[in-house]
Amino acid sequence: MTENCESEKPSKIAKLDDITNDEFVSKISPSFETFEGFQVKRILKESPESRSIVVEGSFSGDNSVASVSSSIVILEKTHFTEKEVHGILTKSTALQCLFNNDVYYNFLCHPPIQLNEVKATLIHPASEKHIEKFSTRKSFLIEETALIYQSVTLLHIRESKFDLQWVYNILEHKKEADRIVYEDLDPDCGFILLPDLKWDCRSTSNLYLTGIVCKRDIKSIRDLTSEHLPLLKNIFDKGSASITKKYGLDKSEQRIYLHYQPSYYHLHIHFTSLQFTPPGCNVERAHLLSNVIRNIELKSSYYQESSLDFLAFEGDPLLKKYHQYIGLSSDGDY
Amino acid sequence: MTENCESEKPSKIAKLDDITNDEFVSKISPSFETFEGFQVKRILKESPESRSIVVEGSFSGDNSVASVSSSIVILEKTHFTEKEVHGILTKSTALQCLFNNDVYYNFLCHPPIQLNEVKATLIHPASEKHIEKFSTRKSFLIEETALIYQSVTLLHIRESKFDLQWVYNILEHKKEADRIVYEDLDPDCGFILLPDLKWDCRSTSNLYLTGIVCKRDIKSIRDLTSEHLPLLKNIFDKGSASITKKYGLDKSEQRIYLHYQPSYYHLHIHFTSLQFTPPGCNVERAHLLSNVIRNIELKSSYYQESSLDFLAFEGDPLLKKYHQYIGLSSDGDY
Repeated sequence: MTENCESEKPSKIAKLDDITNDEFVSKISPSFETFEGFQVKRILKESPESRSIVVEGSFSGDNSVASVSSSIVILEKTHFTEKEVHGILTKSTALQCLFNNDVYYNFLCHPPIQLNEVKATLIHPASEKHIEKFSTRKSFLIEETALIYQSVTLLHIRESKFDLQWVYNILEHKKEADRIVYEDLDPDCGFILLPDLKWDCRSTSNLYLTGIVCKRDIKSIRDLTSEHLPLLKNIFDKGSASITKKYGLDKSEQRIYLHYQPSYYHLHIHFTSLQFTPPGCNVERAHLLSNVIRNIELKSSYYQESSLDFLAFEGDPLLKKYHQYIGLSSDGDY
Repeated sequence: MTENCESEKPSKIAKLDDITNDEFVSKISPSFETFEGFQVKRILKESPESRSIVVEGSFSGDNSVASVSSSIVILEKTHFTEKEVHGILTKSTALQCLFNNDVYYNFLCHPPIQLNEVKATLIHPASEKHIEKFSTRKSFLIEETALIYQSVTLLHIRESKFDLQWVYNILEHKKEADRIVYEDLDPDCGFILLPDLKWDCRSTSNLYLTGIVCKRDIKSIRDLTSEHLPLLKNIFDKGSASITKKYGLDKSEQRIYLHYQPSYYHLHIHFTSLQFTPPGCNVERAHLLSNVIRNIELKSSYYQESSLDFLAFEGDPLLKKYHQYIGLSSDGDY
């Protein structure tokens, strides 16, 4: 069936491009019509909130090179379409009543197979790196003092040499120029606003745009002082106004925030619909731009002097460096 | 089938107890075996992230009193159980390949009916209040200045006379005494820590406890000054330590935060597992206790003087009062 597949690669998966699987790849591309022969080895990760589960296993009885290697299956329940709802709420759906009190009923339903699909992502064969990437990683909240920022984080940023060429390509109109929603190319206060790759642009209910500042010397909120207030206010006002104009979402319906730590060290601002809660809008990672502006107005050096909490994951090089710095073991016992 | 239903009432639904449905309630409790005769009227709310949808409709061809009234159906995809996963990943599940590139495959799967259930909650008949409660409400981010707090919010809190008797019952050991995880009854720095009602206490992956302070004169973070630093640090240290001791979750694995606006105006602190993301931990509502302590250390009057953003929902009395105060219409155009 693979020949019927679309050729476009989802962006989320594209990030794994750099993983070399040559040693695993079967010469004959297998054709999956069912999960016949699949043996579950273990559950790597569960997300009850989003109804998804990641499983490691292998296909037995397959004589290809890949037969003994691991595979990863990510199972996700799909969201209801309006059409499916019309089909499910009929006599074709058997109900099993779990509970009734007055006007309230709870049922387990068994809708027709074709109205209740599951999305599966298969990585076959899967390397150790895939397995690591898709396994649950413990997370820890780190209190980064000003000293730890200078001694650990700043060195980490410099050593890691994060590739920002893709950001400069956008700022120089070499890439994604057709996606730009708003731009202000002022060298001090300018920024480019465009849809985030995580947004499918199909509905404003999950609206997600990113504002990338033109200035190249601001790594994160740690660098922001009163000198940057005109820049921050410019983004806050013009970014939100262009979203109101283009998508009809009032400023008070937008969540405008920065990440700390950010995923790349070139200052950028997130604009999402308040109706939508992407993973990065939690209090341990997000900082409302309005609040950042107020804190800098209170004290220009607020973000240089204050401790900041950030979330680090098991296996993250920054977490290891932090542990080394405070001279304790990396078992989370600090 | 209703006679087989369990009698326990889910706590989420229990909140609707006060709604009077006498005028609607059918004399004969209907027995639902399918959704036969259900007519979809409209979609009231969708939550793609949690794979749930709320539908308003009615049962036709039913001769009971309730036949012409509205019903609400909440459909939710269920999370995978490990047993189901073993059954789904077999030859019984038909696969439709959407995409293949190298080792990456995307499929739509059609597992056997009994391995892919949907949970349905039916409210039948449903009143206008039910429909309002289960409909999407627009939300707005409000910038509450110190003046607006004094002129609008504080008056609202005083007028609303929020009933705090249930809080005092806990503090006086009249209720929930058996649920207390830790207590420190010092009149200035004391607090009681107990599992939040939203936690099922079955696993630490969704751990959620609440620390309720003994002092009765602190409404919210707006009242906090340097005078309260010993109290806040006491809760931060002893609350987290008792969770580490009882549930094995290190302080760095806990999200410790306050809400603004809180749902009741007696100071309380939320302790959740970082692995778990309850709705109230978003940046527009949550304030990390560590950060609150640092801000007060920076400036004792930080929370009296600073503007604070808070989320208000359409229909919320506070939003109306805010709009009246700033003298604009309540259509969100401010």
